[in-house]
Amino acid sequence: MADATTTVEQLRTLVRQFVDQRRWRQFHTPKNLATSIMIEAAELSEHFQWLTAEESLACAGQTPSDSPIAEELADVLSYVLALANALDVDLDEALRLKMLKNAIKYPAPPSQAVEA
Amino acid sequence: MADATTTVEQLRTLVRQFVDQRRWRQFHTPKNLATSIMIEAAELSEHFQWLTAEESLACAGQTPSDSPIAEELADVLSYVLALANALDVDLDEALRLKMLKNAIKYPAPPSQAVEA
Amino acid sequence: MADATTTVEQLRTLVRQFVDQRRWRQFHTPKNLATSIMIEAAELSEHFQWLTAEESLACAGQTPSDSPIAEELADVLSYVLALANALDVDLDEALRLKMLKNAIKYPAPPSQAVEA
Amino acid sequence: MADATTTVEQLRTLVRQFVDQRRWRQFHTPKNLATSIMIEAAELSEHFQWLTAEESLACAGQTPSDSPIAEELADVLSYVLALANALDVDLDEALRLKMLKNAIKYPAPPSQAVEA
Repeated sequence: MADATTTVEQLRTLVRQFVDQRRWRQFHTPKNLATSIMIEAAELSEHFQWLTAEESLACAGQTPSDSPIAEELADVLSYVLALANALDVDLDEALRLKMLKNAIKYPAPPSQAVEA
Repeated sequence: MADATTTVEQLRTLVRQFVDQRRWRQFHTPKNLATSIMIEAAELSEHFQWLTAEESLACAGQTPSDSPIAEELADVLSYVLALANALDVDLDEALRLKMLKNAIKYPAPPSQAVEA
Repeated sequence: MADATTTVEQLRTLVRQFVDQRRWRQFHTPKNLATSIMIEAAELSEHFQWLTAEESLACAGQTPSDSPIAEELADVLSYVLALANALDVDLDEALRLKMLKNAIKYPAPPSQAVEA
Repeated sequence: MADATTTVEQLRTLVRQFVDQRRWRQFHTPKNLATSIMIEAAELSEHFQWLTAEESLACAGQTPSDSPIAEELADVLSYVLALANALDVDLDEALRLKMLKNAIKYPAPPSQAVEA
């Protein structure tokens, strides 16, 4: 998995260069980018729209990196990265802080319980 | 920026452990996760709903990692990572493949034009 | 059911007056209204986010007009009506035309088959 | 405008018959229908994605009932009606109740102020 070695910043740079080379920064207001995440997420969701929960589970491990579902997921991610770039938000830091908050809101059950 | 050193896989692991410790995997069908990305993206979008393009631009550089906007962006990212985990998709590979496709669809103008 | 006697135009007028009394028309660009439909639809969807298909079916007939789910549905509808007002689209006509198109795309099976 | 004479119930019936003739009720869980509203709203929003507020305003009065934008709006409405059918919610009643609540939350300024 390339994810094992690629840093978040490397992906951010990839998106930043793509945007700048096309002079799209003028369109990339935070407002437009947030809407674009929703739009791409909806295109992703369309693949599962009429599937049962079980049918959607069957996609696990059956989604090569160039499949339509992986492409839509990549589109969502590209706008997440573009918005992080536009707002200058460190995603690693924001994610860790939010997960600390979530961990307090939703405490994990004791690990014995998990093992049992 | 922690994004400079954190790998995508490290963030994926963070989300995977959080989900597993809470035994949430049963709810994390690809169908539910795709919908959840949309829902979180909508919560993010709410922050910009009635702002003008210009007002939304003013958020740039004014969004600390623990601000409500950064938190919503982190929520979106966490579901993107959870869906990548559930489907076993390499995000780096999917993103690079999709951007190659986009680069053909939207060719960059010659670089002189950019410099001018 | 009041829906049996209320015309679409009466609901449109209700929304139009509400918007005009608050001088909100300046914010009600088609772009903002389309995004607002998505945002309200996401809030509606949150009520079903972690329910199974079966659990969501159990909401049928258990949703009074002043319940949270009915309120979110009303919010979505209010923005649909506001956008129809802003664009000056006749919803009855647009819906009938679209359903004719859908009927060609998805032909109904013969009625005997339905009766059997 | 046909909206002036068509009742909400007439549109609900139109959608109900379409769904039943195709035996789609099995797919029309409240969960799926709420997601479908989001998906169609996103397709609608795509038409305005990169437009400025001003450019989107120029669509007003330029949107015939069979235009792509009106079609997407009709798609959103059809799922709103389908969900009202599935949940057995009276839309007129739900909308009026929600607007009463909104009127308290957002009081209208005095009418002289509006006239001035």
